[in-house]
Amino acid sequence: MTKYSYKCFDCGKYYGKDEIEKNLIYLCTECGTVEKNQPLRGILTLEYDYEWIRKSYSREGFLKFKPGKFWQYDYLWPLDFDDRKIKFIDEKLLQKIILDPNCIQELSYEGKNFSVLDDTRNPTLSFKDRASSLVVLKALQLGIKEIAAASTGNAGSSLAGICARLGLKSIIFVPKNIPDAKRIQIQSYGANLFLVDGDYDAAFDVCLELSAKKKWYSRNTAYNPLTIEGKKSAAYDIFISSNGVMPDTIFVPTGDGVILSGLYKGFSELLAIGWIEKIPKLIAVQAAGSNALVRYFADKKFEYRPAKSIADSICAGAPRCLYMANDAIRKSNGGAVEVSDEEILDAQKYVAQYYGILLEPSSSSTFAAYRKYLISDDSINEKVLLLFTGNGLKDTSALNKWNNNLLPVNEIAIKKYFNM
Amino acid sequence: MTKYSYKCFDCGKYYGKDEIEKNLIYLCTECGTVEKNQPLRGILTLEYDYEWIRKSYSREGFLKFKPGKFWQYDYLWPLDFDDRKIKFIDEKLLQKIILDPNCIQELSYEGKNFSVLDDTRNPTLSFKDRASSLVVLKALQLGIKEIAAASTGNAGSSLAGICARLGLKSIIFVPKNIPDAKRIQIQSYGANLFLVDGDYDAAFDVCLELSAKKKWYSRNTAYNPLTIEGKKSAAYDIFISSNGVMPDTIFVPTGDGVILSGLYKGFSELLAIGWIEKIPKLIAVQAAGSNALVRYFADKKFEYRPAKSIADSICAGAPRCLYMANDAIRKSNGGAVEVSDEEILDAQKYVAQYYGILLEPSSSSTFAAYRKYLISDDSINEKVLLLFTGNGLKDTSALNKWNNNLLPVNEIAIKKYFNM
Repeated sequence: MTKYSYKCFDCGKYYGKDEIEKNLIYLCTECGTVEKNQPLRGILTLEYDYEWIRKSYSREGFLKFKPGKFWQYDYLWPLDFDDRKIKFIDEKLLQKIILDPNCIQELSYEGKNFSVLDDTRNPTLSFKDRASSLVVLKALQLGIKEIAAASTGNAGSSLAGICARLGLKSIIFVPKNIPDAKRIQIQSYGANLFLVDGDYDAAFDVCLELSAKKKWYSRNTAYNPLTIEGKKSAAYDIFISSNGVMPDTIFVPTGDGVILSGLYKGFSELLAIGWIEKIPKLIAVQAAGSNALVRYFADKKFEYRPAKSIADSICAGAPRCLYMANDAIRKSNGGAVEVSDEEILDAQKYVAQYYGILLEPSSSSTFAAYRKYLISDDSINEKVLLLFTGNGLKDTSALNKWNNNLLPVNEIAIKKYFNM
Repeated sequence: MTKYSYKCFDCGKYYGKDEIEKNLIYLCTECGTVEKNQPLRGILTLEYDYEWIRKSYSREGFLKFKPGKFWQYDYLWPLDFDDRKIKFIDEKLLQKIILDPNCIQELSYEGKNFSVLDDTRNPTLSFKDRASSLVVLKALQLGIKEIAAASTGNAGSSLAGICARLGLKSIIFVPKNIPDAKRIQIQSYGANLFLVDGDYDAAFDVCLELSAKKKWYSRNTAYNPLTIEGKKSAAYDIFISSNGVMPDTIFVPTGDGVILSGLYKGFSELLAIGWIEKIPKLIAVQAAGSNALVRYFADKKFEYRPAKSIADSICAGAPRCLYMANDAIRKSNGGAVEVSDEEILDAQKYVAQYYGILLEPSSSSTFAAYRKYLISDDSINEKVLLLFTGNGLKDTSALNKWNNNLLPVNEIAIKKYFNM
């Protein structure tokens, strides 16, 4: 049986798993706070018995896993594993939430090789399926049938899609101006969708209030510790795909800071178990118009500013997971950088046309940052990995911004174009 | 080394591979015709030395392959294999065109199990990647750098995406009213895109004329025999995933008839090698507004009618591969059915909400047909498989047709909705 407990990131208080899970507690009861336009305080993290895990797996055995079936890392998940199977779930259901097993790819740019973790071909075409899958499995274990989330689009479509696959109901709150394709995706999966007249922060607040009153399970990112936990599978997938020879530096698209915190969690576990010697440098990549973490990393001050960028998925004026993400950057000797919307769109075009991978703007931000990084001295011998987290078809309006040239529309014009 | 030759489907004339490939011949030089609004005549098929293949693989060995890396079926591909490697290509490039290895899924409907081949998570999110990949590899072998295709959207976005991944240039001709997301997808991959003032048949004609003059390699579906050949990998993937216990009946979305012909080709090869005892019944599913094959199957008469349906990917007034597809249906003891646009949209909604799989309308046509089929006597003990060929995000306008309910857009309205 998996053994784990919960621990407050801020005050360090420990909780037994039943105390948290059976009472639907999300934040630390001592110091947790949810305040308007503020990062969360009292986020919980999960701790396992790493000594016991070291004995349960061998490094060589672990490296033989293939990415995709994230639940294969059984004793490292807070689920009811017994004899390496999840007790409460039919194996057939698990087949429906398999992620892309070929998510790690090798690419090159101007003669230099780098890797990407490309999560754009997951069940709902984004990285968020890593978190949604774990949250939905936990809901199934707890016997809860309704799950709610606030979202800028991807977390919502992911939750809606995974719920549809596993037979649960989802209730999603989004800012009313999210990209049309994301709205349609969420709605099509049968979610109860609500457009909130405000930004993501406003949607978050409404969702939390209603979830508490209606007793929905909450998939609000950072708030539910399993959202961070689910994303740690990316760290394991990277470890396995690199056959234990880890990247030196990883570029992570960062809004709320949950992907970054989840990655750090996974790597720090591999370190605790003794399978890696150090954690890759984690570089938070933010849009210039949504750079709260960049600012906090520089001067330790959080100041709320409304976020605005073409990269809607990483727009967060008040990153919920700010303190934990900042801690992850520091402890990994990483950094925080910002890129402009223009650089993001230019990177999006390059990745589509040279690698044939269609990204949404939040994802191409990492390639934009990588290009800038290449001119630094650090980059010379480093093994770099970028996260590509969302498919470009989720936001065609962004693609349209650079695909606006007029095309010939009839036979005569076409032939003329070719001088015929 | 792989051994194969070309044979005319209509007159049976044989050609050596170099004669066809080095001279860029597509149709039979004896009887091939391309006529406006008519199915093609003289389509070529590929024949291998099946005796030799039987000796080169064991059935058990073949069944140990995993779907996704389609080129693993080495001696069954018309590529320059030597010592089980494609001579002219870097292995790293092949990693970029891996299809979804978990494409076969088990689902159930009203207590009855069925399977799907879900190709909506391929590199460009459609089945067409099976054909494009083979065509692009052949172009690389021939040293050609420019490939052209006419398309209703998916073949074009697939060719554009695969060309981007492998470093070639694509020139695509589409009807000017294709779904917006497909247009953007093609354009984003850096293709030279031309909108033709007319339907798919008109785009096909312009493309053929220009390709001949400009010496582009042609990926026009059915016209280039490798488009049919590439799609046969689906038959092998089904064979492997079912561990040799084949489905009895397969529902295939059908416009031009190329997917159906490709599937039949793959199965007939497995039969020729002696690994299966019979070919599954192939059921062509057409939209009521684009039912040329249904009509031809019934009374052996082809009559051109302009095609019109919400399922744009299977709209073809003159299916290019009509005769070969009809032959495949007959020889497999299959059939041809039509479904209305209303049934297609209703099926699209069901598949999204109960299986969490977002399909474009052409793909949900197979589920619509399957539902009708279930009330027939034949269905009782049959093992059925449906093809899901394109991702729903490629055409959000279709999803919008049934996602048009008004949503509450502010906090007060949302709380009122929940009686708060």
